[in-house]
Amino acid sequence: MSSSDSDALVLSDDPLHPANLIPELCRNFYQLGWVTGTGGGIGIRVGDKVYIAPSGVQKERILPVHIFVLPYPQAAPSPHTDRVFLRRPSLNLKESACTPLFWNAFELREAGSCIHTHSQNAVMATLLWQGKEFTISHQEMIKGVRVGGVARALSYLDTLVVPIIENTPNKEDLKDSMAEAMKEYPNAAGVLVRRHGAYVWGSDWEKGKTQAECLDYLFEIGVKMRQAGITTVVSS
Amino acid sequence: MSSSDSDALVLSDDPLHPANLIPELCRNFYQLGWVTGTGGGIGIRVGDKVYIAPSGVQKERILPVHIFVLPYPQAAPSPHTDRVFLRRPSLNLKESACTPLFWNAFELREAGSCIHTHSQNAVMATLLWQGKEFTISHQEMIKGVRVGGVARALSYLDTLVVPIIENTPNKEDLKDSMAEAMKEYPNAAGVLVRRHGAYVWGSDWEKGKTQAECLDYLFEIGVKMRQAGITTVVSS
Amino acid sequence: MSSSDSDALVLSDDPLHPANLIPELCRNFYQLGWVTGTGGGIGIRVGDKVYIAPSGVQKERILPVHIFVLPYPQAAPSPHTDRVFLRRPSLNLKESACTPLFWNAFELREAGSCIHTHSQNAVMATLLWQGKEFTISHQEMIKGVRVGGVARALSYLDTLVVPIIENTPNKEDLKDSMAEAMKEYPNAAGVLVRRHGAYVWGSDWEKGKTQAECLDYLFEIGVKMRQAGITTVVSS
Amino acid sequence: MSSSDSDALVLSDDPLHPANLIPELCRNFYQLGWVTGTGGGIGIRVGDKVYIAPSGVQKERILPVHIFVLPYPQAAPSPHTDRVFLRRPSLNLKESACTPLFWNAFELREAGSCIHTHSQNAVMATLLWQGKEFTISHQEMIKGVRVGGVARALSYLDTLVVPIIENTPNKEDLKDSMAEAMKEYPNAAGVLVRRHGAYVWGSDWEKGKTQAECLDYLFEIGVKMRQAGITTVVSS
Repeated sequence: MSSSDSDALVLSDDPLHPANLIPELCRNFYQLGWVTGTGGGIGIRVGDKVYIAPSGVQKERILPVHIFVLPYPQAAPSPHTDRVFLRRPSLNLKESACTPLFWNAFELREAGSCIHTHSQNAVMATLLWQGKEFTISHQEMIKGVRVGGVARALSYLDTLVVPIIENTPNKEDLKDSMAEAMKEYPNAAGVLVRRHGAYVWGSDWEKGKTQAECLDYLFEIGVKMRQAGITTVVSS
Repeated sequence: MSSSDSDALVLSDDPLHPANLIPELCRNFYQLGWVTGTGGGIGIRVGDKVYIAPSGVQKERILPVHIFVLPYPQAAPSPHTDRVFLRRPSLNLKESACTPLFWNAFELREAGSCIHTHSQNAVMATLLWQGKEFTISHQEMIKGVRVGGVARALSYLDTLVVPIIENTPNKEDLKDSMAEAMKEYPNAAGVLVRRHGAYVWGSDWEKGKTQAECLDYLFEIGVKMRQAGITTVVSS
Repeated sequence: MSSSDSDALVLSDDPLHPANLIPELCRNFYQLGWVTGTGGGIGIRVGDKVYIAPSGVQKERILPVHIFVLPYPQAAPSPHTDRVFLRRPSLNLKESACTPLFWNAFELREAGSCIHTHSQNAVMATLLWQGKEFTISHQEMIKGVRVGGVARALSYLDTLVVPIIENTPNKEDLKDSMAEAMKEYPNAAGVLVRRHGAYVWGSDWEKGKTQAECLDYLFEIGVKMRQAGITTVVSS
Repeated sequence: MSSSDSDALVLSDDPLHPANLIPELCRNFYQLGWVTGTGGGIGIRVGDKVYIAPSGVQKERILPVHIFVLPYPQAAPSPHTDRVFLRRPSLNLKESACTPLFWNAFELREAGSCIHTHSQNAVMATLLWQGKEFTISHQEMIKGVRVGGVARALSYLDTLVVPIIENTPNKEDLKDSMAEAMKEYPNAAGVLVRRHGAYVWGSDWEKGKTQAECLDYLFEIGVKMRQAGITTVVSS
């Protein structure tokens, strides 16, 4: 594929093209404090293509030409096979280290986007909830959360359960434990990673962003409540 | 009504036209943390027309063409009658679920705008004030609050009382309890909804926004005071 | 004076003209949370003219045409004399209620600007320091503070003292107690008003803004320290 | 050197030219609360030239023409020799008081940028960690930190150690103690200054900014953890 063919995959006048959305959303997430220090990011899948930001770059300064495009589906890379790309940026860049984790959301939830944040609300939630679940009920924002493959809405009276997995020195090693948690909790709207952050997904980029905002709001209010000595789960 | 007639209701060069104001104010509210995760919003009434944002959309990305226009006054929808619109956006959108609650402010207070926030300051206030009232006195910001139908200003020495109602699984069910609280507290400048947020209104969009900012400031400082062990109501 | 003559006092291409600066700085202060709900603001004096924003308007939406211009010096209004203006906006607006308090800074400190904030850091400082002084030492930011008529810099080892006066139901009544505090504390860089906010000044608009930022930073860190049980004044 | 020759050193259409980057980054840092009240800033070195902002100016309002350019390397000024400049702004400005401290990073770490913040997270960290080291382990963000001359990455399991030096009344006096700490801690990614802030560096402007964000995130979460009674260093 020639370079100009490849660029055509990420150059578009449409502000809603994934290669335009990823830079814009990452600036948004930077202002929310989710992706400072090059951490965090978003992967978007539209049909048979996945768009992913580079690893180790300032997330609020990504440009469309920095975006990787990958065919979907594809098998995970192995000792004998590499990851397949439709486009690599013409720079010395590597795809986001979150790629295998985003893939979990695409494969196990048919997600159209997956967002990874280093939000301090998420990290504090994993420090104050020492077990393997963050739980909260009786918050209006819970009604914004969609769970399961059919995107079912929760009720205000439902208890939201977000599984917490343990962090690992290498991000690649998170892939299996995240997948395991997603299978054990088929209704999970996201996965918390202890002392690290959260992965949240949705059927498209809008739903992914909305879910990330709802969950982060709930992590934040949950942390405030626990620190104020208020229980977060009310038995109805 | 033809589509172009309908669009004329929301397309205007005037930045103060309600269909331009709603998108701008919602971006403002997003930055304040009031309307993340598609929650919250604002309804504006100018004379015999009401302008309302859609339900379930990202509030910071609303466009004028997304705005619903409704005639005012009109009876609440019933099992036999639908809500009446002058304009529906040509998209698969539903009007904000807050519509009946905004209507409370228009009907019971002759309000020109009503703002709904999911502000964490409001939610924390409803968690720390477990009864049916949030109260605070001796704060300069209280002087910014307008109460009652005649928009009377409060004194620095007055005690501001904001009624707190219980949240319900369905937003429609809040309409009656909000109306009841507004009648029981004719001087209320807004209504808090436990574990949910706040509804605040004003005689026009500016007053509504100003009132929402004053009250949110007072919820925030009230929460800080209570958490620091400082009483919020001083007996003069 | 004709309307066009009057407009010439506030219409300028120079971004540093006071009538352009006041709107810009108020947007800045809004983002800092200092002037929400129409509270707070800034008055600028350049030579024999004082520029002041209107009362009761959204501070982040002021336009140059909204600015009042007053001759300086002039006597305070009395039962028999009105305040004198070079320009009033052609709208139903009243000058900021802070005008007499800004005048204190112009007259007693020869200030070129005076900023009033409702910052919650300032209010919390007045709640946690129950006496008539806020004090802090051994903070690098103290070196940014300028005190006294000769704009002397403080040392890192100095104790910054900011007098706290009691709030009054009417802002006009604050004028005398603020003036008294400024005379009693000739080195004060600003005055805190209990349960209300702060007044801070400087020899020009830049110095006023810088001083307001330094003091607000010190109120914020002081509140955090006291809440963490750390004393704010170290005996050297 | 004529004035136009001198201006050529700071006027460029390239947004990544240091004289364009410094103003932009300082606006960014202002929004993060790192450089209010004229405090803090950034120095950038590209090859044999160092670019530095003025002292005592509003950091969010710097223009390219305000930037100082210095040849690198050069000896520290002494009683008999002045600092050497390739360009001084044609205004009554003095170079940032941080210049000798930035020089430490350039000389001892071959840094391409050095950032100084007055972040309250950094100051609170120095108040809650009363010894000479801030330490934290088991945080994903630690993996973003680069240590030592070869920019080695830390593991999630490593303990990050940031030395804390005591503040001094005169910034010049910090130069030696900062250099001493950098030699004693060859793997330090930055230096905290008690009751003052932090100095952080990187091999170029991007790495410096990234490191400053990573460390500030860790100071913030460390302070939150300690205040919640959670130990920040886990023994593996």
